Amino acid sequence: MVQIGKATIGEEKIREYEPYMYKGVIDERLKRVQEAYDRWQKTRTFEFPTWLYGQPLGKLFKVEVEDCPTFGETSWLELDSARTAFFSIDMQGWAWLLYNRQGYDTKLIDAPIQPIKNCLDAVRKTDMKVVHFREGHRPDLADCPFRKSYINKVVGEGITFGSQDPGGCGRIATRGQPNHDTISELYPIPGEYIVDKSGKGAFHHSDILQLLLNMFPPPTHLILTGITTDVCVHTIMREANDFGYWCLLLKDCTGSTDWENHLSAIKQVKMRGGVFGWVSDSQRFLEGVEANLT
Amino acid sequence: MVQIGKATIGEEKIREYEPYMYKGVIDERLKRVQEAYDRWQKTRTFEFPTWLYGQPLGKLFKVEVEDCPTFGETSWLELDSARTAFFSIDMQGWAWLLYNRQGYDTKLIDAPIQPIKNCLDAVRKTDMKVVHFREGHRPDLADCPFRKSYINKVVGEGITFGSQDPGGCGRIATRGQPNHDTISELYPIPGEYIVDKSGKGAFHHSDILQLLLNMFPPPTHLILTGITTDVCVHTIMREANDFGYWCLLLKDCTGSTDWENHLSAIKQVKMRGGVFGWVSDSQRFLEGVEANLT
Amino acid sequence: MVQIGKATIGEEKIREYEPYMYKGVIDERLKRVQEAYDRWQKTRTFEFPTWLYGQPLGKLFKVEVEDCPTFGETSWLELDSARTAFFSIDMQGWAWLLYNRQGYDTKLIDAPIQPIKNCLDAVRKTDMKVVHFREGHRPDLADCPFRKSYINKVVGEGITFGSQDPGGCGRIATRGQPNHDTISELYPIPGEYIVDKSGKGAFHHSDILQLLLNMFPPPTHLILTGITTDVCVHTIMREANDFGYWCLLLKDCTGSTDWENHLSAIKQVKMRGGVFGWVSDSQRFLEGVEANLT
Amino acid sequence: MVQIGKATIGEEKIREYEPYMYKGVIDERLKRVQEAYDRWQKTRTFEFPTWLYGQPLGKLFKVEVEDCPTFGETSWLELDSARTAFFSIDMQGWAWLLYNRQGYDTKLIDAPIQPIKNCLDAVRKTDMKVVHFREGHRPDLADCPFRKSYINKVVGEGITFGSQDPGGCGRIATRGQPNHDTISELYPIPGEYIVDKSGKGAFHHSDILQLLLNMFPPPTHLILTGITTDVCVHTIMREANDFGYWCLLLKDCTGSTDWENHLSAIKQVKMRGGVFGWVSDSQRFLEGVEANLT
Repeated sequence: MVQIGKATIGEEKIREYEPYMYKGVIDERLKRVQEAYDRWQKTRTFEFPTWLYGQPLGKLFKVEVEDCPTFGETSWLELDSARTAFFSIDMQGWAWLLYNRQGYDTKLIDAPIQPIKNCLDAVRKTDMKVVHFREGHRPDLADCPFRKSYINKVVGEGITFGSQDPGGCGRIATRGQPNHDTISELYPIPGEYIVDKSGKGAFHHSDILQLLLNMFPPPTHLILTGITTDVCVHTIMREANDFGYWCLLLKDCTGSTDWENHLSAIKQVKMRGGVFGWVSDSQRFLEGVEANLT
Repeated sequence: MVQIGKATIGEEKIREYEPYMYKGVIDERLKRVQEAYDRWQKTRTFEFPTWLYGQPLGKLFKVEVEDCPTFGETSWLELDSARTAFFSIDMQGWAWLLYNRQGYDTKLIDAPIQPIKNCLDAVRKTDMKVVHFREGHRPDLADCPFRKSYINKVVGEGITFGSQDPGGCGRIATRGQPNHDTISELYPIPGEYIVDKSGKGAFHHSDILQLLLNMFPPPTHLILTGITTDVCVHTIMREANDFGYWCLLLKDCTGSTDWENHLSAIKQVKMRGGVFGWVSDSQRFLEGVEANLT
Repeated sequence: MVQIGKATIGEEKIREYEPYMYKGVIDERLKRVQEAYDRWQKTRTFEFPTWLYGQPLGKLFKVEVEDCPTFGETSWLELDSARTAFFSIDMQGWAWLLYNRQGYDTKLIDAPIQPIKNCLDAVRKTDMKVVHFREGHRPDLADCPFRKSYINKVVGEGITFGSQDPGGCGRIATRGQPNHDTISELYPIPGEYIVDKSGKGAFHHSDILQLLLNMFPPPTHLILTGITTDVCVHTIMREANDFGYWCLLLKDCTGSTDWENHLSAIKQVKMRGGVFGWVSDSQRFLEGVEANLT
Repeated sequence: MVQIGKATIGEEKIREYEPYMYKGVIDERLKRVQEAYDRWQKTRTFEFPTWLYGQPLGKLFKVEVEDCPTFGETSWLELDSARTAFFSIDMQGWAWLLYNRQGYDTKLIDAPIQPIKNCLDAVRKTDMKVVHFREGHRPDLADCPFRKSYINKVVGEGITFGSQDPGGCGRIATRGQPNHDTISELYPIPGEYIVDKSGKGAFHHSDILQLLLNMFPPPTHLILTGITTDVCVHTIMREANDFGYWCLLLKDCTGSTDWENHLSAIKQVKMRGGVFGWVSDSQRFLEGVEANLT
């Protein structure tokens, strides 16, 4: 132990993980979890935790979630409308163009258009926030990793991100080009957010976290829809879940380039009680919205 | 405009920044700011915005802040105790060891010890959170940029991060070594948080954001104290402010290697109405705590 | 257009995405991609790009990758040993404990132990870096989102992260507890890196990016192994890929709680030419290492 | 110790920071630092570390840096032109408009215009990259924290970010508005990068890190210029330095709202051997460029 000026350095009681430190925090945490668990056993509902986030700033509503906590079982998720954001992910023209060229069946990504539209129609009558994501690159491709350009060039037989679309829809997945924009069927309306991202995920290279933390009010729960199920939707869901957001995937509002991957992506979410969030569908979501928010 | 499957691509109404998009959001935002401004003109208080964060989960209290909105003027900041975190930054043994060797006057960093202690004594009687930061490196220096090791080697005449302290206090600024730990006078108690960081800032390379977002409840306002004013305290304040946290620096609870830099760092915070947050001191903070939380 | 002091504000030539700006950058980018593509067509090899990263600092070696660029085809990936990091992800005791309790077949996660061991044996004779990841929480659970504790409590019939393991292996997935540590078969050796992370991914809440950017030298290519294929391995792969790292998954060095999800996770990587990276296996990786690095 | 399947859990040799783990890494690190230090003592030059980053991809050049390692001393920094990025930070119209209104002397920010211009003229003849930053907000202010809008409203007597400029220059600091753009004197040219950021710093809420990591080639050294010295220039410098970038501030290419804060911000960089990087000026930078790159 050394004394320099007024500072005592090298206290003997060097931090120990256990049992000394943090004691108060873990006790409160386990207690709160126990209380929530006790209530869940009675209600089968993952209630909006007002002790954690405060009283609702909108209206509470409940959505049935499937295969939770285990396959074949049903639970309910409760949300505060004012603290819920609805994500419509990458419903952009270039997906149809590119997957079509690469030989994938675009009927799989046609499928979610109408269910998302139905949800948007309902959500727009509430105080939920809507965020539209768009994957794509700066016109100079400066935010496109070389490997990404390269591998797409190889698989696309010469056509990659930033290449001119032979069908006349402009440079592929490039900001400012028609094919980069959200498809007309699901176009944003005033008051909604648009997030341009260069990756499959969004939290590293876009301002989505800045937006979420600074919304009026900041959301706690997220509804995930869009394409593709196993790529961008899943990546954003994983990132958001890691930050602590409560995520709900609407399965019929998603689609992929491959039916097996789509199904597996949905199943992956449900493992271990909901490792990345919960799964429901547009019908049950709409029932929840209509029963409580209208 | 192209139709592929059910998707319409290349809508003519390509996103325009103005005047079409986002209209609802900006109107609400400017209205909320106007309302807050109108109230501030009456109360000179930056009130806790319940419409944004919900009703208080602890108790509200007010602290007088100086030179705000302009030099010579006084305002008040209102906080919710349960959503306030008190940061004690880098009050670690190695600062005294290293600055002493480098010829700086460690009386400048002695000065904040007692004021921070006084604040901690008061804060520990409330539901405010306490976070202790520690700058330092993995024992293998794996998280220490080469330039950082190098420049410190040059200025330290051969002694750098990870070197054995000639005075017997272990490897300098290395985790697990006595000199890396918080000084005894300000040692954490159970229920408080310790954040080890490899940089001057904390939000990139530590789990501080994860902690803040997942506290019970997540803080909205931060109290900043520690050393050094112009380096680590300022960097963390800048990062937190950019994320949207409401930051309050207690000036007598900070110190630097240089008196001019200390004073300028405080002044820098106050520019342009409080560009990085607000400035007060331990006495006014304690008055606020005692008047409202005890 | 306004002139204030020496500044001219409001130039008419407001930034346009196209066709004015960034022209040089996109031309160089498309040219580099074209050159790499031309060479790939001759060699079927994704060569280490020395024009991008500089001359090799170790030795070049090649690994055969499967189903690339499309299913049924084979390509080669070339790496610089000194700029390659080998990731062993979450091979921790608590996985066996917890999945066993939850009724999953732990043979699926037994399977990768020996293949990873074989790779580690070979890698340790080279200048490749090794990083061991561990998912788990601070002893106070401060970095565990409430939802994560909660959902695991529900699915675990009362046993969650931080709970005492009824079998006597300490608090589950809690740092400092035996079950949190890497299993003995794959234990780190001196000179390797250990990254503790609170999420499924690692780039947000740990210092992995700091480590990668500051290694001697910084890696450009990553080898991914560990558990579970569809959860932590995939999340880390997605994050790294988004940052621009060249990722290679060794499929027999991974395992999951579910065989279908494991297979689909591997397939998902291969879509669209390798949307998250490439897939190979331990045998082909070892062949590449042995042929070039020994 | 427990055996489940093929996994052995709870090895007795739980990770210890010292002396067991990481041994190889620290030895190499200290050795590399020692070697660099030995060479520095002979050359007074912080050489470009080819063992770390590879052989130069452009040309090496040297710039004299002042007050390094201590005040009154001089050293040299060596850079690889192809791995150097020149940052021109926030040289936007709204700074002049807003500071003028707030009563600050805009001569202080006039001063760096010509020195930056001189540097840009020289840099544009080399293979260095140029990045122009712009602080400002989405037209809907969605990325503007409420506190930021609020405090600027208070200090600006009702005029804040997003407000209409009474002088007719559009909404203040709002993307797409003339006052948000770079001033004409320092306008970007094709092949340069523009980064829009919502904060004082840039690494959290913009794609700057994505750009840097994916440039052809990725820079290791950064030249910092722009306004204001103590706010945005310093914040970006702190962030970049924490990530391990080698930063060089050109002091006459910066300016602030306050002369004391400007001087102190420069002095702060020089403390402790260069805690955030090095300081030089346009003349010495141009000498280095002209002597080696032309």
